[in-house]
Amino acid sequence: MFISFEGIDGSGKSTQARLLAEALRKEGLDVVLTREPGGSTGAEEIRALVLQGEPDRWSPHTELLLFTAARRDHMERVITPALTAGKVVICDRFADSTRMYQGLSRGDIRALVDRLHDMMIGREPDLTFLIDIDPAVGLARAKGRQGHEERFEDFGLDLQKKMRAGFVDLSHLFPDRFRTINGGRSPEEVAADVLRYTQDMAADLKKAP
Amino acid sequence: MFISFEGIDGSGKSTQARLLAEALRKEGLDVVLTREPGGSTGAEEIRALVLQGEPDRWSPHTELLLFTAARRDHMERVITPALTAGKVVICDRFADSTRMYQGLSRGDIRALVDRLHDMMIGREPDLTFLIDIDPAVGLARAKGRQGHEERFEDFGLDLQKKMRAGFVDLSHLFPDRFRTINGGRSPEEVAADVLRYTQDMAADLKKAP
Repeated sequence: MFISFEGIDGSGKSTQARLLAEALRKEGLDVVLTREPGGSTGAEEIRALVLQGEPDRWSPHTELLLFTAARRDHMERVITPALTAGKVVICDRFADSTRMYQGLSRGDIRALVDRLHDMMIGREPDLTFLIDIDPAVGLARAKGRQGHEERFEDFGLDLQKKMRAGFVDLSHLFPDRFRTINGGRSPEEVAADVLRYTQDMAADLKKAP
Repeated sequence: MFISFEGIDGSGKSTQARLLAEALRKEGLDVVLTREPGGSTGAEEIRALVLQGEPDRWSPHTELLLFTAARRDHMERVITPALTAGKVVICDRFADSTRMYQGLSRGDIRALVDRLHDMMIGREPDLTFLIDIDPAVGLARAKGRQGHEERFEDFGLDLQKKMRAGFVDLSHLFPDRFRTINGGRSPEEVAADVLRYTQDMAADLKKAP
């Protein structure tokens, strides 16, 4: 089972990815917790190249190619081998983040993002959690922990609002795999919802032919 | 006018690119001499990522995405602005090298290379010089100057032979822009041919509507 967590910066999705991994491990499952961009040795090196520096360091097109290169490496070396071995893969951000950040943040190249994804990646998660939160709250949280990977946070509240609306649109576009969770509650309350939906989906996948 | 130099490692194409730039500058032309992978600040950083390390560090697919990211940056920041300003751009390797090295060296993903090029780059040089040389001679020359960028040279004589045959095939596929030059002569003799063909092509381009 391949599960991704999506949402704007500061939504709490990384915490939720970790909490779900812990809960499933307690149930005796073999879980690989990973993240994007990055998640494999090569992809982490590409991550460093993409996330550091000035906001206009890369054009949206170049950035899209770099993220797709990182994702391809991550798929080949971590995600696909783990899924093949029957493990659960939980990924903090996946292709939906590229659809939003590279596809919509500076101009609209969403169609190109989808074509490149189909050509070079060609797989979606079985289940995607959208941790939905007020854009201003997310921004305040993200700014509180701001480090050296700040290219995207620099773009501010307008971007947060646009990305939040975009993620909600995406969840309507892919209703089968998206579950939208209210992230404006305690981490424990959010985690309880996430675990319940995961168990429901696991039961559905078992039933599937 | 956009001119590229192609050929196997050790063919002498870098020397020829430099000699042509010098000759055209003597004629009073504004020439940008550049290279791939690299040629812009960002693309040179991607170059370092791709050319160093073990031969299997990246899969052909990931490598293709990284080279295309570097090329996109190079096009946006160096090549297109120079051509728009009426300069001559001379590039040591361009998309044909990707068609060969990423497209054919490990498995055959040539069709994918072409689709990605059309989607993300979408432009060919006006004139491409294939500096053609005996694969063993090229390999000996390349090994003589071997430095830290050795991922591809490691692949040996079989690769050189395969790439040489592939470049010749490419020259037949794009006869309008390809000029194949016998690289097994002195640099001065090769340079004289290159300059003559460049002047012919410049005259043809002037005549074009």
